[in-house]
Amino acid sequence: MSYDLLLDHLKKTTALGQVSGLLGWDQETQMPSKGGVQRAEHMGALEGVLHARRSDPQVAEWIAAIDIDRLDTAGKTNVSEAEKAYKTATKVPADLAEALAKHAARSQGIWAKARAAGSVADFAPTLKEMINLKRQEAEARQEGNASRYDTLMDDYEPGMKTSEMAALLSDLRTGLVDLRGRIGDSGKAMPVLQGDFSKDKQMALAQALPAIFGYDWEAGRMDLAVHPFCSGNGGDVRLTTRVDEGNPFDCIYSTIHETGHGMYEQSIPNADSLEPAYSYASMGVHESQSRMMENQIGRSRAFAEHLFPMFKAHFGEIGVETADDFHKAVNNVRSSYIRTESDEVHYNLHIMMRFDIERALIEGELEVDDLEAAWNERFEADFGVAVDTPANGVLQDVHWSVGLFGYFPTYSLGNLYAGELFAKMQSDIGGLDGMISKADLAAPLEWLHRNVHDHGRMKAPGQLIEDAVGHKAGASALLGYLNAKFGEMYGV
Amino acid sequence: MSYDLLLDHLKKTTALGQVSGLLGWDQETQMPSKGGVQRAEHMGALEGVLHARRSDPQVAEWIAAIDIDRLDTAGKTNVSEAEKAYKTATKVPADLAEALAKHAARSQGIWAKARAAGSVADFAPTLKEMINLKRQEAEARQEGNASRYDTLMDDYEPGMKTSEMAALLSDLRTGLVDLRGRIGDSGKAMPVLQGDFSKDKQMALAQALPAIFGYDWEAGRMDLAVHPFCSGNGGDVRLTTRVDEGNPFDCIYSTIHETGHGMYEQSIPNADSLEPAYSYASMGVHESQSRMMENQIGRSRAFAEHLFPMFKAHFGEIGVETADDFHKAVNNVRSSYIRTESDEVHYNLHIMMRFDIERALIEGELEVDDLEAAWNERFEADFGVAVDTPANGVLQDVHWSVGLFGYFPTYSLGNLYAGELFAKMQSDIGGLDGMISKADLAAPLEWLHRNVHDHGRMKAPGQLIEDAVGHKAGASALLGYLNAKFGEMYGV
Repeated sequence: MSYDLLLDHLKKTTALGQVSGLLGWDQETQMPSKGGVQRAEHMGALEGVLHARRSDPQVAEWIAAIDIDRLDTAGKTNVSEAEKAYKTATKVPADLAEALAKHAARSQGIWAKARAAGSVADFAPTLKEMINLKRQEAEARQEGNASRYDTLMDDYEPGMKTSEMAALLSDLRTGLVDLRGRIGDSGKAMPVLQGDFSKDKQMALAQALPAIFGYDWEAGRMDLAVHPFCSGNGGDVRLTTRVDEGNPFDCIYSTIHETGHGMYEQSIPNADSLEPAYSYASMGVHESQSRMMENQIGRSRAFAEHLFPMFKAHFGEIGVETADDFHKAVNNVRSSYIRTESDEVHYNLHIMMRFDIERALIEGELEVDDLEAAWNERFEADFGVAVDTPANGVLQDVHWSVGLFGYFPTYSLGNLYAGELFAKMQSDIGGLDGMISKADLAAPLEWLHRNVHDHGRMKAPGQLIEDAVGHKAGASALLGYLNAKFGEMYGV
Repeated sequence: MSYDLLLDHLKKTTALGQVSGLLGWDQETQMPSKGGVQRAEHMGALEGVLHARRSDPQVAEWIAAIDIDRLDTAGKTNVSEAEKAYKTATKVPADLAEALAKHAARSQGIWAKARAAGSVADFAPTLKEMINLKRQEAEARQEGNASRYDTLMDDYEPGMKTSEMAALLSDLRTGLVDLRGRIGDSGKAMPVLQGDFSKDKQMALAQALPAIFGYDWEAGRMDLAVHPFCSGNGGDVRLTTRVDEGNPFDCIYSTIHETGHGMYEQSIPNADSLEPAYSYASMGVHESQSRMMENQIGRSRAFAEHLFPMFKAHFGEIGVETADDFHKAVNNVRSSYIRTESDEVHYNLHIMMRFDIERALIEGELEVDDLEAAWNERFEADFGVAVDTPANGVLQDVHWSVGLFGYFPTYSLGNLYAGELFAKMQSDIGGLDGMISKADLAAPLEWLHRNVHDHGRMKAPGQLIEDAVGHKAGASALLGYLNAKFGEMYGV
């Protein structure tokens, strides 16, 4: 009885949370420019409703009255998720929660202007206040011996600890620095595409991709957005992409990446029940699905057999003549200032910088006044070039402006998980490369359903991956994949 | 203090109501087909939140503590609107409100299937239950000597009574039957368009129209929908239209009609304050804005001077050679089974039928078992032809399936108001025809802002029109306009 009442409450809260997600999607893809003032009121009013529901004292009463042992796994997950949301909502004082929401709404615009102006000083006071508020939030929510940063990271990767994440990234870093050095020493250059990559042609090609990666168009759609994202759940999962007429890979791999997220959301069973048990496992697991589709499959030599003829059919002459050269053009390794433009070798080096820096900011080991110097020093050490302007440096990412501290490491975790899952999939499915070269992903998708998607949120993410691959996730699978791929390409 | 608390509560409720409107827009224009199950949950959860806010006992306490005489007109309107919403929400028992919401959600699908199958019997039990529930709702809310139908109609046209509406429509009916007879007796036929009216060409022309009628594209957008509608408020007002490649007038006049609604919503001052005082006056007044743009202006001989060359430019050869013949093709009078396809002479005869029939259904003077016979008898009497199939008869409109009883008469009221407002505008603005022929609507739009839009919801709709035109609204202005226009066209 108490469980039924709690579940009904949870499902309505999930429904209202999905409405909030739809408002965000609409804002980025459909909303006219003058709609912003009202939209802020819509989001604020809905946020107030959601907070009131999550912190409703009845939730605690229902939970206390439930005989947890009589519930199945989904039921236990629903109760623990409700308890977690209740704690978060009640431990943070109302005035702090309101201050955080208001500051995030203001801060993003200030960051965007400061980035455009190339002025760290313009953003510094706002960032100081954000860090001040996030430190307070973390302290209000801290439990046991969890650090402030542990507390914040738990929102995105449940159960993950700073020490564990640092160890994983440290192993990865050693291997990447080595690989990066060998590639640089090789002096080899890869082919570059040249051709007419008009917007219409890119979009026609992009539209043909999601179905290959298991995306169901009857349960979704695709629109343009400045920064591509995926939004929605179950029967309504919406992709976005973007077009750079000078570089078709931006659109094509953004599309495949977001399709990976969308395919995961569409594949979780019973998603339209709105029960918390039937949602994604963690941001790290989410990113593993998008990165595996984008990289291990989408940027593979095997998939080039399928994608190269598609490029020729859509764009005509593209400046490379073989699937082999096409694959090399796709995987060109180049140091870049910008995280979102970087290749598989450099990407995680970007994340590690942010992980170390944001952890120091939250734990009080680094202050905003010293941030730009710390960023620039670390960048030059890791990437071998000096930052030329803050827009290419410390001001490039939106995350900190909206209070997303503890989120960055889930990107690398997603890459590690993708490495683990793909290695196991390759050993479980005979002839995987042949399937990928024909764009027949039925078997790998079925493998992912069974080992990842079907479990929803009912396992801790680390356990989910461990059960899927037979051991705790580490850096070696990803490093093995990267060394083999780029070692062959660059002869190192 | 109480007023400030009430106002904050009202604004958040308005914001959440706008979110519900956006979900409806998204469902009709963007949502993938498999999104329906979750969307029903979204709407249900949001409706629950809205009902709880409107019936919150604090609302009554705040209102009781307010010194109403110290408030300005907007403040008084805000309080009276809150009081009205509170009464509606609290007088209807929760189980009845829930039964109504669930039945409406179910009923629309049953109606659509019955219409497709041409079977009144398939819809009859569902309609009986809907009427049963609406009678109960009206009885729960009845005040003073208001009838059931008065009570329901008040939701759409505040203050309007059945007797007053019946008298207005009776005067209009006499004049329309006379005009219709004379047109029929004339034996004259009007020119008909012929040409290539492809979807792309129609949409290109449609995109060029809203700005003429005062619509601000920075505060809106236009999409396709099966049944065109307008949705939104203030800085975000969205139009929809549709395309019939055999008849370009459907798209063009749907676009102008919805633009009239959209222009009104965009023109109400302080709409983004979310205060109830700054919203539309009534559905009748709303319809007066759409119908004036569509008919008095859009279908005028003067506007044909502008629209005919636009048609030639977009479609090439269209089968008529002069603006005069174009105007006649636009205004061809033909009896039609379908309300939404009917001309200005027949349209209100459709509405009157529905007004008389739905009033009898709600007041208990007509039962569903006798409905089809009553409809068919009345239609043959008014339109001179027998109904051939229920889809062209009693099953043609969606309204009753979703419980919209009392809404139909606001369509005719909108036409009467449009007639009154346009007549006064013509006498106030010298050279109006010349302006319309050049598509320069600055002066009439300014007149509408001053006399209608600027007042938001701060006057009762009847008073608003009376103040604008100097007398109580009646049928003579509309009849005078129709007799002049069609008398000249048909030489009668």
